[in-house]
Amino acid sequence: MKVAIFFGSKSDTEIMRGAANCLKEFGVEYKAYVLSAHRVPEKLTEVLIEAEANGCEVVIAGAGLAAHLPGVIASQTTMPVIGVPINGAIQGLDALFSIVQMPKSIPVATVGINNSYNAGMLAVQMLAIKDEKIKEKLKTFRLDMKKKFIEENGEGMDL
Amino acid sequence: MKVAIFFGSKSDTEIMRGAANCLKEFGVEYKAYVLSAHRVPEKLTEVLIEAEANGCEVVIAGAGLAAHLPGVIASQTTMPVIGVPINGAIQGLDALFSIVQMPKSIPVATVGINNSYNAGMLAVQMLAIKDEKIKEKLKTFRLDMKKKFIEENGEGMDL
Amino acid sequence: MKVAIFFGSKSDTEIMRGAANCLKEFGVEYKAYVLSAHRVPEKLTEVLIEAEANGCEVVIAGAGLAAHLPGVIASQTTMPVIGVPINGAIQGLDALFSIVQMPKSIPVATVGINNSYNAGMLAVQMLAIKDEKIKEKLKTFRLDMKKKFIEENGEGMDL
Amino acid sequence: MKVAIFFGSKSDTEIMRGAANCLKEFGVEYKAYVLSAHRVPEKLTEVLIEAEANGCEVVIAGAGLAAHLPGVIASQTTMPVIGVPINGAIQGLDALFSIVQMPKSIPVATVGINNSYNAGMLAVQMLAIKDEKIKEKLKTFRLDMKKKFIEENGEGMDL
Amino acid sequence: MKVAIFFGSKSDTEIMRGAANCLKEFGVEYKAYVLSAHRVPEKLTEVLIEAEANGCEVVIAGAGLAAHLPGVIASQTTMPVIGVPINGAIQGLDALFSIVQMPKSIPVATVGINNSYNAGMLAVQMLAIKDEKIKEKLKTFRLDMKKKFIEENGEGMDL
Amino acid sequence: MKVAIFFGSKSDTEIMRGAANCLKEFGVEYKAYVLSAHRVPEKLTEVLIEAEANGCEVVIAGAGLAAHLPGVIASQTTMPVIGVPINGAIQGLDALFSIVQMPKSIPVATVGINNSYNAGMLAVQMLAIKDEKIKEKLKTFRLDMKKKFIEENGEGMDL
Amino acid sequence: MKVAIFFGSKSDTEIMRGAANCLKEFGVEYKAYVLSAHRVPEKLTEVLIEAEANGCEVVIAGAGLAAHLPGVIASQTTMPVIGVPINGAIQGLDALFSIVQMPKSIPVATVGINNSYNAGMLAVQMLAIKDEKIKEKLKTFRLDMKKKFIEENGEGMDL
Amino acid sequence: MKVAIFFGSKSDTEIMRGAANCLKEFGVEYKAYVLSAHRVPEKLTEVLIEAEANGCEVVIAGAGLAAHLPGVIASQTTMPVIGVPINGAIQGLDALFSIVQMPKSIPVATVGINNSYNAGMLAVQMLAIKDEKIKEKLKTFRLDMKKKFIEENGEGMDL
Repeated sequence: MKVAIFFGSKSDTEIMRGAANCLKEFGVEYKAYVLSAHRVPEKLTEVLIEAEANGCEVVIAGAGLAAHLPGVIASQTTMPVIGVPINGAIQGLDALFSIVQMPKSIPVATVGINNSYNAGMLAVQMLAIKDEKIKEKLKTFRLDMKKKFIEENGEGMDL
Repeated sequence: MKVAIFFGSKSDTEIMRGAANCLKEFGVEYKAYVLSAHRVPEKLTEVLIEAEANGCEVVIAGAGLAAHLPGVIASQTTMPVIGVPINGAIQGLDALFSIVQMPKSIPVATVGINNSYNAGMLAVQMLAIKDEKIKEKLKTFRLDMKKKFIEENGEGMDL
Repeated sequence: MKVAIFFGSKSDTEIMRGAANCLKEFGVEYKAYVLSAHRVPEKLTEVLIEAEANGCEVVIAGAGLAAHLPGVIASQTTMPVIGVPINGAIQGLDALFSIVQMPKSIPVATVGINNSYNAGMLAVQMLAIKDEKIKEKLKTFRLDMKKKFIEENGEGMDL
Repeated sequence: MKVAIFFGSKSDTEIMRGAANCLKEFGVEYKAYVLSAHRVPEKLTEVLIEAEANGCEVVIAGAGLAAHLPGVIASQTTMPVIGVPINGAIQGLDALFSIVQMPKSIPVATVGINNSYNAGMLAVQMLAIKDEKIKEKLKTFRLDMKKKFIEENGEGMDL
Repeated sequence: MKVAIFFGSKSDTEIMRGAANCLKEFGVEYKAYVLSAHRVPEKLTEVLIEAEANGCEVVIAGAGLAAHLPGVIASQTTMPVIGVPINGAIQGLDALFSIVQMPKSIPVATVGINNSYNAGMLAVQMLAIKDEKIKEKLKTFRLDMKKKFIEENGEGMDL
Repeated sequence: MKVAIFFGSKSDTEIMRGAANCLKEFGVEYKAYVLSAHRVPEKLTEVLIEAEANGCEVVIAGAGLAAHLPGVIASQTTMPVIGVPINGAIQGLDALFSIVQMPKSIPVATVGINNSYNAGMLAVQMLAIKDEKIKEKLKTFRLDMKKKFIEENGEGMDL
Repeated sequence: MKVAIFFGSKSDTEIMRGAANCLKEFGVEYKAYVLSAHRVPEKLTEVLIEAEANGCEVVIAGAGLAAHLPGVIASQTTMPVIGVPINGAIQGLDALFSIVQMPKSIPVATVGINNSYNAGMLAVQMLAIKDEKIKEKLKTFRLDMKKKFIEENGEGMDL
Repeated sequence: MKVAIFFGSKSDTEIMRGAANCLKEFGVEYKAYVLSAHRVPEKLTEVLIEAEANGCEVVIAGAGLAAHLPGVIASQTTMPVIGVPINGAIQGLDALFSIVQMPKSIPVATVGINNSYNAGMLAVQMLAIKDEKIKEKLKTFRLDMKKKFIEENGEGMDL
């Protein structure tokens, strides 16, 4: 596996599926875990060590409310950690601030509220630094996206 | 010691002194530590276990930005944890949300932004559940506070 | 009774039931009252005095909008007061600020928006300072929580 | 006296002077008190009853943070209560929400953040309902304000 | 008529009915108008002058979004103007700020978001300055409110 | 004159000078007035009519707090009105919301907080619809801006 | 065509139809395009150049989230660009800030959240600077609006 | 060079120096450019292509206000782009939202407000995926950080 996806509750599964979907599109292997920084901190540490031992190179972590999961993971690994703020209250601003405002030296690469697809994409972009095939796929993806966008939206529309 | 005070950086010393001052007023023994949930997580766990072994009954933790320290402590102990949001950015709203919006089962007793004195007072009120002498001191404190307030502010003022 | 639960309107019953549920799980006796700081201030004072006389050691108070109830109670007792901000408008930010930003010397131990279960848990943690049996139950609760979490969420999931 | 001005701390004196200044301009008698809803609730009730007995018809109350003072006063009198949110933190939004979002039946007439002069003006407007002389003064004040504004700002300016 | 109620769109009728309901409870005569500060400014001025000529003593104005209506009315009369922020977007914060943050000398007495009942109550409290019968009704209302609250909510509840 | 600049207080002169500076750069004639929607509404109407009669084609209006000035002007003219929110409190969010959230049919073209230079630029862009010379100047301005930017910032920098 | 309407996704069609409806009411020719600043930047540039060549004089652009579309267009043309913040998250505040807070020299004329009708109206007002017929229509529109408003809302209402 | 650092104005140099400092600590080669998405879009594209041709693998971009720079870069490259929101107004919330809320498929890895050091660290973590030496340095850095933290903050402090 190349990417480990963590989130704190089964109720976040639908939101986090976007990350998995993106990784599948690029053929990147991943494993997903429901694990909580507050409820099972030792298990989290254990799984994280295991993941890194099994080849994991990037972590994606989604959380809502006082969303500590991404930051707690970031404090235990030197892999890049991508954080997905999940809207559980206050429009997701609590999760956004809890994830993005990390202290000096322990960053979390934060994406938009509920936007786990972009977390997947960012993981792919990071892996592409090392993997030329993924790099090629990314370039093709962008060209296809453009082509499809233009096909679908054509040369102006009725409004 | 009865109370352990934690905060993440020496630069927060002045803000957190309020908690110590309150505890001193009530003759409650405490110990203070600069410890970071993200930078030295293992040391934090170690000190926390030691504190509980040495009689600690309440924890006060202050943090700014993505203020994970109080929540991370709360996940590692069953002692009540009092959180002080410190204003480091966005008027302290990031710290407030990161501390108060904890998930089900792992609460942090949050006080006002930068208001560490109130964290000290809350610790005293918790200890007073068990300790009649502190309970008496609290009642005296309130009466003195009222008396002093009325003496200082009198029967109306010029404006 | 050990805990008194107050809230300002019958319409908040469902939100506040979480606190009662938590106390029941730990076998902590409580009594609940619908009482308003603004509509029946004298009755509030009367019930509060009576509760303390009957052995109450911790107060939980939930309120929405300009949520004065927890703070007004805190000004009338030296027991620790736990405040639950209830989302009635502006995502509950009005209630959160009205509860958490108490002035020096009169703290309210604030939990997350609508998160009354955590208020119950915090009350249990405070009572455990004095009561070894509750302390044991808390430790068991945490171990069970971890065990159950891991059983339910296993060793990774399909996504 | 016609108007009672309350605020919770001597440190708010400069902010609240605006209310007094406005009342002086209109020759309205007032008395000012530093009194706290949380620190000296009984004294507040006592002074309020006394004020009403001495002819007080409108109350102005300024407070910062979890600004309960205006609402607590409003719950103890049927006089109109004017609330001044004072900026003590979070740009004064905590005080604004704590004052303006009062529950059904117990309103506080809220003015702008730190804008105690407008609280004075509102008190004058309320008293003018009953007092023709004040009504006349208000009309004159408006005409003078317009005249002065136009004199000072003339017919266009260099920029 | 004693009170004029203004609001900018028929779609706000349900929100503003609370003000009328409160005035009816106290037997205060009022008249209601749908009038817009931006769409029909001249008509607004005309109706306002007419209302004052017909005995109007207090104005209630509700508005959403860039809620200028209460402030524009306040600039054209010396009667006290009560503003009701209506939630049309951004949780009603746009309307709240547009109403409460009036400049020096032209206040609007602002009540809570969508809380037009409290605008009615505030109008009644203002009229009671002059009218002893309304004053008596207010005192009776408060006593009845307390009595009814205690009857309904009794001596504690099951939770 | 082509553009009329309005603002509500001499204390806003420095902020609003940016609009004038931009208009000067493009040789667009303007006149500036300190006029208040709330304090001198009739004078505002008078000056506005006069300005339009004298060839004015675009209005720029700056205001802080409950910033009604741009919207009130927009309700009295069919000229495009450009609004500048001025930071007087709450980081200028009150002014921003009061200006941008105008109701259907009466828009205000809002620019950034305190960014009156951009209001001037927008006025120039509007006038360029009709005036080819200004259109040319705008194109030259953009090219010069690019050239100057690249000259000043060169081909990378030390950091 | 006189106006080009851009927006980033077909899902925004209903929100943006308001702009088209307004332009139709005034008989202003327009063309609408679904085009994304991030997904098809080169196509956007191409269409923009073509639009200007075909007589386009004003651009309307709607976008949600990190709403770069209006600003990116503004950086590529000297035509006035009107931005419509679309509520996709955080009540539309992300889009509002991303559109209105443009840097010096590259303004976007921002209208209210989701209020594309006002973007249409602003475009009409800009075109009226040059086109007397549109100017007349605008004046008639305003008179009709007033007349209709008064007819519909009459001389007071039951409430 | 491995990392390209972009920011929109020389006035942001001090804020952005943190990213450079972090890269220097790890011996990662970088180049820094002041370039604006709105003022010199073509130059930005040119420099970006050149950077990638010269071995650049990660981009860091800092911007304030309507901070489009990171997103505009992300739309033109498949390299991972790290965004630094710079506080220019509204406490930096405008920049944060403009950077983090990117649409599907075009992510920006966002770090804390003004926290460019963390952008540097994130770039290092990304490069470590491919470069074992940097990976080792990161692990050493973490150990040193812990050691130094504990040395400096010792075994408890006076407060």
